[in-house]
Formats: sequence, C-alpha cells, structure tokens
Amino acid sequence: MAKLYFKYGVMGSSKTAQALITKFNYEELGMSVWLIKPSTDTRDGADIVRSRIGLESRAQVITPEQDIREEYARAGQRDVIIADEAQFFTPEQIDQLRALVDEEDLPVLCFGLRTDFLTHFFPGAQRLMELADSLTEIKTVCACGRKATVNARIDGSGRIVTQGGQILLGGNDSYVAMCHKCWKRKIREQEETVQKG
Amino acid sequence: MAKLYFKYGVMGSSKTAQALITKFNYEELGMSVWLIKPSTDTRDGADIVRSRIGLESRAQVITPEQDIREEYARAGQRDVIIADEAQFFTPEQIDQLRALVDEEDLPVLCFGLRTDFLTHFFPGAQRLMELADSLTEIKTVCACGRKATVNARIDGSGRIVTQGGQILLGGNDSYVAMCHKCWKRKIREQEETVQKG
Amino acid sequence: MAKLYFKYGVMGSSKTAQALITKFNYEELGMSVWLIKPSTDTRDGADIVRSRIGLESRAQVITPEQDIREEYARAGQRDVIIADEAQFFTPEQIDQLRALVDEEDLPVLCFGLRTDFLTHFFPGAQRLMELADSLTEIKTVCACGRKATVNARIDGSGRIVTQGGQILLGGNDSYVAMCHKCWKRKIREQEETVQKG
Amino acid sequence: MAKLYFKYGVMGSSKTAQALITKFNYEELGMSVWLIKPSTDTRDGADIVRSRIGLESRAQVITPEQDIREEYARAGQRDVIIADEAQFFTPEQIDQLRALVDEEDLPVLCFGLRTDFLTHFFPGAQRLMELADSLTEIKTVCACGRKATVNARIDGSGRIVTQGGQILLGGNDSYVAMCHKCWKRKIREQEETVQKG
Repeated sequence: MAKLYFKYGVMGSSKTAQALITKFNYEELGMSVWLIKPSTDTRDGADIVRSRIGLESRAQVITPEQDIREEYARAGQRDVIIADEAQFFTPEQIDQLRALVDEEDLPVLCFGLRTDFLTHFFPGAQRLMELADSLTEIKTVCACGRKATVNARIDGSGRIVTQGGQILLGGNDSYVAMCHKCWKRKIREQEETVQKG
Repeated sequence: MAKLYFKYGVMGSSKTAQALITKFNYEELGMSVWLIKPSTDTRDGADIVRSRIGLESRAQVITPEQDIREEYARAGQRDVIIADEAQFFTPEQIDQLRALVDEEDLPVLCFGLRTDFLTHFFPGAQRLMELADSLTEIKTVCACGRKATVNARIDGSGRIVTQGGQILLGGNDSYVAMCHKCWKRKIREQEETVQKG
Repeated sequence: MAKLYFKYGVMGSSKTAQALITKFNYEELGMSVWLIKPSTDTRDGADIVRSRIGLESRAQVITPEQDIREEYARAGQRDVIIADEAQFFTPEQIDQLRALVDEEDLPVLCFGLRTDFLTHFFPGAQRLMELADSLTEIKTVCACGRKATVNARIDGSGRIVTQGGQILLGGNDSYVAMCHKCWKRKIREQEETVQKG
Repeated sequence: MAKLYFKYGVMGSSKTAQALITKFNYEELGMSVWLIKPSTDTRDGADIVRSRIGLESRAQVITPEQDIREEYARAGQRDVIIADEAQFFTPEQIDQLRALVDEEDLPVLCFGLRTDFLTHFFPGAQRLMELADSLTEIKTVCACGRKATVNARIDGSGRIVTQGGQILLGGNDSYVAMCHKCWKRKIREQEETVQKG
C-alpha cells in the first residue's frame, strides 16, 4: 500500500523545508530515510539539501546516468525514500522510483517544482504528474494575495524574461513566484512600454 | 479570483457525472453555464455529454481549429465554463481557457483523463496539469482495493495492450482502470506466459 | 487499510448524488454496497435515497436505537458501506461504523452536512469530524461567488432565522447555502432594519 | 476573499514547524504576520513558539479572557494572522478570528490538534472544524505504516491511558500518535492482560 507522492510548489514555497521536516518525522519514529537529490541541482554543495529557513541535511546525489534502483540496492534497505528537487530527475528515474514503490512497497515522497519560467514542465515533474498516486500542492502567495503558480524569471533590470533555456547557469537572473494573471499582465505591460518607447 | 480547475480521473471514475452535477448546482443558483466538449470525443452523438449513470446534457462541440475565446464571445457571456473530456483539447485551447480565467474572471472547470493507456499525458491534460490553479483527483478503486490510476487498454482476448496509438478508433479494445502495481504485474505475467508458450 | 471517510457539504452541494455515484462505481466493479440512512431523514420515503438531479436508490433505514454492527451482520457481508445524511446518526453509531472499518477492514463512506443553521455541529457530523481518517469537502458556491459553508435557514418572509431547534419539522422554512461573510452581513442588515423600523 | 484555515494534525506531525515556515514565507514576501498562541500552552516559555526540528519565534500570548479582535487592534494592522496550538483557544475566540477574516479580509491560519487522548475535540478545534473555510490535515504515520490520527496518552509504565482530564499538567505521561486501529487494539490487549492477571 505504499504510494508515489509528488508534492509540488513554486520557488520559495518551502519545498525543501517540507522534505526535511518529513525526514525528521520519519526518523523520530525510528524509521530510516534515504534522502536523494539530482546532481543538476548543486547550488548548495554536492551533497547538501538546504532550506532557506535554515534546515539542512546530507543527501545522496544522483546523476542522470544512474539507475536509482541500483543505487538504492547499494545504499541498503530503508523505510522510505525522500527526494528533493525531483523535477530534475530524468523520466526514466521517475519510472525507477515508481518501480520501487510497486515492487518494494516503499513509500517515495518527491518534492519539486512543477513548471519552468515559461509554464512548461520540467521532464521529471511531467513524469511525476503522470505517475504519482498522490499530487499535493505546497502553496504560497503572489504579492497580489492570490496563490502563486508561476516561477517568473527576472533579469538584472527587473524585467520578466520570456526566452531562454529551461535551466539557467550563472547570470544575474532570479525567480519570483506569482499568479498566472499577474505574470501575464506584467509581460503585457513590458511589451506596451517597449512599443511606446 | 476565478480559477482554472482540472478534475482528473481514470475511465469509469464518473468524471462526466461530476461535470453534469456541477452544471446542475450552478444552474440551481441561477448562474449560466457554457458546457463544451472537444470534437474528438463523439461517442455520444455530436453534441451530447452523457454519463454512464444516466445523466446527460447538450454541449457545444469545439473542433481543434477553433479558438475557444472566439467561440465564447459568440456564445454570449456566462457565469462559468464547464468542459468535459478536456484531455482532448489542444494545448493552445487550454491556454485560451486560461486567458478567459485571467481576463474575464470566469471560473473554468475542466474534467478529463490524466493519461493514456501507456501512462503518458494526453496533450490537453498535460497543459492543464501545467497551468491549472487547482488539481483534484476524481477517485475510483482498482479491483484489488487500491486507488486506480492507470487506464489499461484490453484487447478482444482480455490481454493488456502495450502498443498502439493514443486514441483508438473502432476495434474491439476496451479500457479497465487499475492501480499501477496491478497493471505492471499483469503485463509481466502476460510476458512470462508468452515466453513459456 | 480501509478508511472511514466523511464527505461533508452544505445543502444543495450534491452530497446524495455523490453517494449514489460512488455506489454505482463500486457496483460496476462487481463490488457489493450496503447503502444506509438514518431514520431522522424521511423526506423521500422510508427507504429511498434521492438526489435533486434525479438519481435514486433504496437504502436500509437505521433508527437511533439500532446498533449498526448488528444490522450489518444481519444484512450480510459487503465490500463497502455508504451512508447518506450521516450527520443524523448518533455519535455511538459513528463509533460503530469506525469499529467496522477497524475490525472488518471495510471502507465506510459517510456523506452529510457539517453544521446546522447556526453553524453548530450535528451530533453525527461532530463524531465523524473527530474520528474520520479522511475529511473531504463537497463544494458549492455562494451567490457572491465565494465558497458556501453555512446552511442559512430562511423563514416564509425571506428572513434568515437565528433561533430554533436544530432539526425543523414542518413549517415554511427553507435553507439557502451561503458563505459565512454573506450570512453575517444579511443578519446584521436585518437587525438594522428592525431597529430603524 | 480571505479565508479561515484550520491545519490540524496529531502530536509530532510538525504543526508548529509548518506554522513557522508559513510565517517565514509571508515575511519573505514583505508581508507582516501576527503570530499568536493561547496561554494554555506554556511549555516553551511565555511567548516562544518552538518546533522540535529547531525552529522558533516569539509570539503574542492570548489568555482565555482576552478578545482577539481587541488585541489585534492594539497590536496594529497586519497582512495575516498565524495561530499555533489553536485547539486551546476558546470557541468565542475562534468566532473572533472568524470575524477578523470576514470584516478585515484578513487571512487567518490556525494550526493545532484535532482531538484529545480520548478522540474528543478540544473546544477550539471543534469551533474551527465548524467554521473554517479550509480544513487541511498535516499528516504523519503510525508505527504500523498507516496514517496516525489518535493522540494516545501513555503513562509512566508504557500503558495507554483511557481516563483523565483533557489537559494534563505535570505527571509522567506522554503522547504517541497512532492510527485508530492500533490504538483500539492496544487498549484491548491491555484489558485482556489485566483480566488474565
């Protein structure tokens, strides 16, 4: 009766804090947790999962070429798998997590982003949305008070970026979570300003 | 504060009945509903939405080439849009529904399948999963008692089909909703039988 | 792994239709359903469960003195229990349903109102809210567009009633579901009118 | 469009951590939070809210006699109210929070226990369950793997306590969250042991 969970949210919705609290809760009950993260996400050092509120933990880093079932077998049996930044796993790796749920009766809780700065799925998020037994949104608010659902990419001059690669390396861009309506409105206002100028 | 809703479920989970009950509730409150369905789904006659439990209603049929905003403008202002079999809309049409939510403050409730018989998104479902403000599962059970999440395609001899087109026209195939674990197990058993044979 | 479910909603949120669709889904899968309702609710004939949208089914009527476990044993083994108007069961009867879940591994799905016309629990609803494994709201809207959560009692002259018994027998009163804010505002406006008059 | 939220969970489900993360998220967005807790809960010092995972924050302590609307007016306008251990507020105080939602359009997020060690509501939790616009469970697991829903009180010798006051002051008792089935089974086993002895 184990399940595959995808707990998705925008940037800044405390996904990593939720992952670490979940780990803490399982461990308090005497259960063993395998905490993993994809190698794509190396902001916080090779093997550290760190949340903005100050929680952190070591995690095993999984590269895109690795088979998660093999890595799990090597790591030794656990009671639960928790994955941070799960949107960066490959679709094949999500299938491997699904197989661990079905074959080992092992709960797998994945935390991650739903979509990129243009509202398109990250590959791992897409496969999770297709395969998960349980989808839960980790919510946060837009500055307007509505729920934030879009990860807007903002360039160095404060403008919303509407072109570019899904994963950004380096540069001065940052992200602001907002609702779809505000995101569209801001883009429209930028365009009008350009046309007037 | 209107939202885009995607209420997804497997075959036989009563999605259409839910759509028609929602329409009934809004109309009881004196609100006007625009009920639409994609032309891809013509099982029940060109413009009828029909649920297995016996509920039915006329709906406007939307072809893949139509712009839903233009059709809405032509149909006249309503209080809410309800869409059945929403997985068959094109991604562009889901973007048009999203725009109606944002620009007209119009609630849009989409009912539909999440994935095809191989656990991959239908295009409209994928775009809804990327853009919806609210994702809700309409649940039903697998024969084993777990929640059903996979739409298994079954051929005339009772075997699970693992190849073929996403949308099936004609033929003797049917669909059975089951959990991912049972689906995988049955496919494995079929393969073992073939190998032994 | 069976669970006790409470699916609560205001008047007119289609709780009974949901109960009957759930029954239909289980029966389509070849499972047997025990449909019950408390004798307090006899609007629709002694043993008929009827939804406003036109669905109906026979149900076993349970009186407040009956032990549901004994009635279940007498009725013969089933795969699932579905209860309509569950707010009218006694707290002891909800405990009996809880015991059937735990001891017989039998899913029990209860549909009913959360609160009365003064926002206080019905006894059965209170016990369900204390004991259920899963609480789900069956939603509907207030005339203002917000979610309706209060069952306002309206007298023959259209005024909101703020005194009286929890269950109303006979009389000209009716119920309108609305949000808490509209309910409070209307009561305040009534009071101001009286004071001015 | 502000709402009254009740996010309930058993002991050890990280309710306080969730409250503090929610506060952090709002403050990161530049919004001001009024964090409150009832005076009944003074485990962590008069005005500290502290979570087992290590997060903490100062909070305003509310005594049972205080009117929360008056205290809020005195504290100065904020963008959101977050309440920890909300089950210990009086029902009147929950009504006051409800009024702040309706009249000031102020979101109020209450975190707390659902029921006591005998599965009966705490007074504040009952009123929240009656009045909240949104009920969300903060989940954790029983040692058996099912979801924990009962706060079992355990005495110094490891036995489940089935009598006593709702709030326990001093003493050697502690709490263990478990599922209803395990709780009932353990009580039954204790009783059988006593009878045999």
